[in-house]
Order: sequence, then C-alpha cells, then structure tokens
Amino acid sequence: MAIKIHGNPFSPATQRVLVCLAEKEIEHEFVVIDLMKGEHKAQQFLTLNPFGQVPALEDGDLKLFESRAINQYLANQYGSKGTELVPKDAKKQALTAVWSEVEAHPFDAAAIGLSKELIVKPMFGGAADKAVVEENKEKLAKVLDVYEARLSASKYLGGDSFSLADLNHIPSLNALFTTEIKAVFEARPRVNAWAVDILGRASWKKVLQILKS
Amino acid sequence: MAIKIHGNPFSPATQRVLVCLAEKEIEHEFVVIDLMKGEHKAQQFLTLNPFGQVPALEDGDLKLFESRAINQYLANQYGSKGTELVPKDAKKQALTAVWSEVEAHPFDAAAIGLSKELIVKPMFGGAADKAVVEENKEKLAKVLDVYEARLSASKYLGGDSFSLADLNHIPSLNALFTTEIKAVFEARPRVNAWAVDILGRASWKKVLQILKS
Repeated sequence: MAIKIHGNPFSPATQRVLVCLAEKEIEHEFVVIDLMKGEHKAQQFLTLNPFGQVPALEDGDLKLFESRAINQYLANQYGSKGTELVPKDAKKQALTAVWSEVEAHPFDAAAIGLSKELIVKPMFGGAADKAVVEENKEKLAKVLDVYEARLSASKYLGGDSFSLADLNHIPSLNALFTTEIKAVFEARPRVNAWAVDILGRASWKKVLQILKS
Repeated sequence: MAIKIHGNPFSPATQRVLVCLAEKEIEHEFVVIDLMKGEHKAQQFLTLNPFGQVPALEDGDLKLFESRAINQYLANQYGSKGTELVPKDAKKQALTAVWSEVEAHPFDAAAIGLSKELIVKPMFGGAADKAVVEENKEKLAKVLDVYEARLSASKYLGGDSFSLADLNHIPSLNALFTTEIKAVFEARPRVNAWAVDILGRASWKKVLQILKS
C-alpha cells in the first residue's frame, strides 16, 4: 500500500483528508499519531511536517502536509478514480478554487473559534467564553448569508457538482452540528439542505465508522 | 482588454494579484476601489465579491475573488505566458501547493497580526499593542525557522524554481521590511537572501511603480 496518512481521528484536518481518500476510493494506511503523547512534535513526525501538525501524507517518496494541499494533490493525481473533485474546465476549476479559499479563510476562522470554545474547552473541563462565542457566531452568520445566496444560484458552492470546495467543509460542519451552532445553519434553508446533503455522503459515513473504531 | 482587476493599491491582497499579472505578462486594466468611500461595500462591487473585500478579477464573463484563488487561475490559464508559476509535474505541483498553504495560514496569520499593529494602527494615529506584537513576532520566528531549514534544501519554498508559493509572500514581506520586523528576517541568512531575491524581481518593481503613481 503506497499511501500512508499520519494523523489523529479527533483532528478535523485529518478527517478532511480521510473523507477525500474515501471519495477518491484510494486505498491507504491510517497511521494514528498520539497527540496526548506529543508524537506530532517528535523527530520522526517532524520529518513529515516540520510544523509538527497533523495530518501528513506519504505517497511513495512524496511527503506532503497541510490538509487542503493534500486534498488538491489527491484530487489531481487520482483524477480518474472515485468522485471527480476538481472540474477539468478551467473556469469551473477557478470557481472551485475561489470557494475552497472561502472555506479556508472566513468560514474556517469562525468555525475554529467556535469549535475551540464549544467543543475543545468543555472536553478539557473548561467553560466557553460567551463573548468569543457571540463574536464568532456573528462572523459565521455573515459568511452563511453569502452561502445562502450562492446556493440559490448553484446546488454546490463551486457549481452544480460536489467538489473539493464542499468536501473541505465536512469535518467542521459535523463538529458544529453537535453544538448550539446547528441553529445558525438551520435558520438558512439552502445552507441547511447543503450541509445535510454533504454530511450524508457515503464517504463521510465511512470515515465516521473509522473514527468510532 | 479582457482582464480587469478591481482593487486598492494599499491592499496587500490586491498587490498579490498585481505582481502575479506582472510575472505572467498579462495585459489588464486596474480599476481602483476607494475603500475610504466604502466602494467595496457598494452593490456594484458586491456583484464581483459578495464578501465585499478587494481584490476581484474579471476575465470576460468569469468573476473571481480571493487573491490566492485568482493567482492560481492566472498561473493555470495563462501557463504559457511569462513566468511558469505552477510546475507541470504533479509532485512538484503538490509541493508548491503545500508551501502556498503555509503562506496562507501560519505565515499570513503572523504577518497580518504584525501589519495591523505596526503599519495600519500608526497610519490612523493609533499605537501598537506591544503584547500582540511580541506574540506575533514569536509566531513568525517559529515559521521562519522552518523556512530557514527548507531553504537549505531548495532555493525556493516550493522547489528549485520561483513559484506561486514564493510570489504570494511578496506584499507581506515588502510591508514587514519597512518595520522592526525586518530584523527577524535578517537573523536568518537563507530566509533573508530569499526575501531580498524575490523582493528584487522585475515584476515587483513594476508593481511598486504602479503603486507610487
């Protein structure tokens, strides 16, 4: 098996690559990195990612990190396998890239802020900072207002087909749907239908099975 | 002239696209958006970018936003013109994508934090928050330590040729070099040589001329 993904089941960035591997139907080995033991800061892992963050991917002698760059590579290099995640047409590809950047910047900034307060802190016995929650909730709402308008013009963010731009959102959507933030999605019918649709994909269900085991 | 870039000369994201257009030797019209007058929040601009942020690009009927997505489009679509900014080889392309993501995330987070305190605040008569400066200076130093090691293995971040991964850094490097943060670069010989090299490119000098006029 040529492809190895080194990561942690609790890491949304790791989950992002796992769901891409599932969509592309690429056989792979999942090497679990124990974050509690600090394995991501150990020399062995730093040769894969000098920033000491999961995930990292090995495909033969190629070593990659940064989940979105890994997914772009998988989508391009294994174009003919599984779901086509990057359109061949240059203009459609450009729109996929635009909405992938939207996920990576304004969406992710709000989603990470919310996950930290509402999921990570309580997991370690802490309490959410309500002001930070409110600030990020407002930011997310503004982003989702744009999504609501966009999803009235096309079924998915990049266009009429499911693409990397949608896929990269899945782990954050899944996490936020377990919190009070679900209501922010439910208040926007097109956004909610889109989120429910992509969270229901067979690829993600497969990843959830791996994460449970 | 088919290509129009709508942006502001003071915006690093606008500068990022201008330097890409210069490297690709693509003729274009620069439509200046007056941020002080709020033109980026006016309906006309929102049809180009619903998030109301500069820059936006029009290429015929294609409308794009997010500077890094625009640059990726220009590099792919105009591959045969000017400098090759995205390698054709899939593995080299993947490494360019990895280091482009590093610019977009850990590097940019620190660079934006520093620019806000050391450039934007003083421009409007405010004072820098020293604690925020120190925090972001430490973050930047850690990122640049990784760059120093990377640049001992290859001349540029993505590999042996100048690519989008380097180019996307130029506006932030240019801004930070006007501040005390220049010393953080100078303390790392390979990083400093790389920064001086890419800031000296003809494309960037051309952009600086446009910005002055």
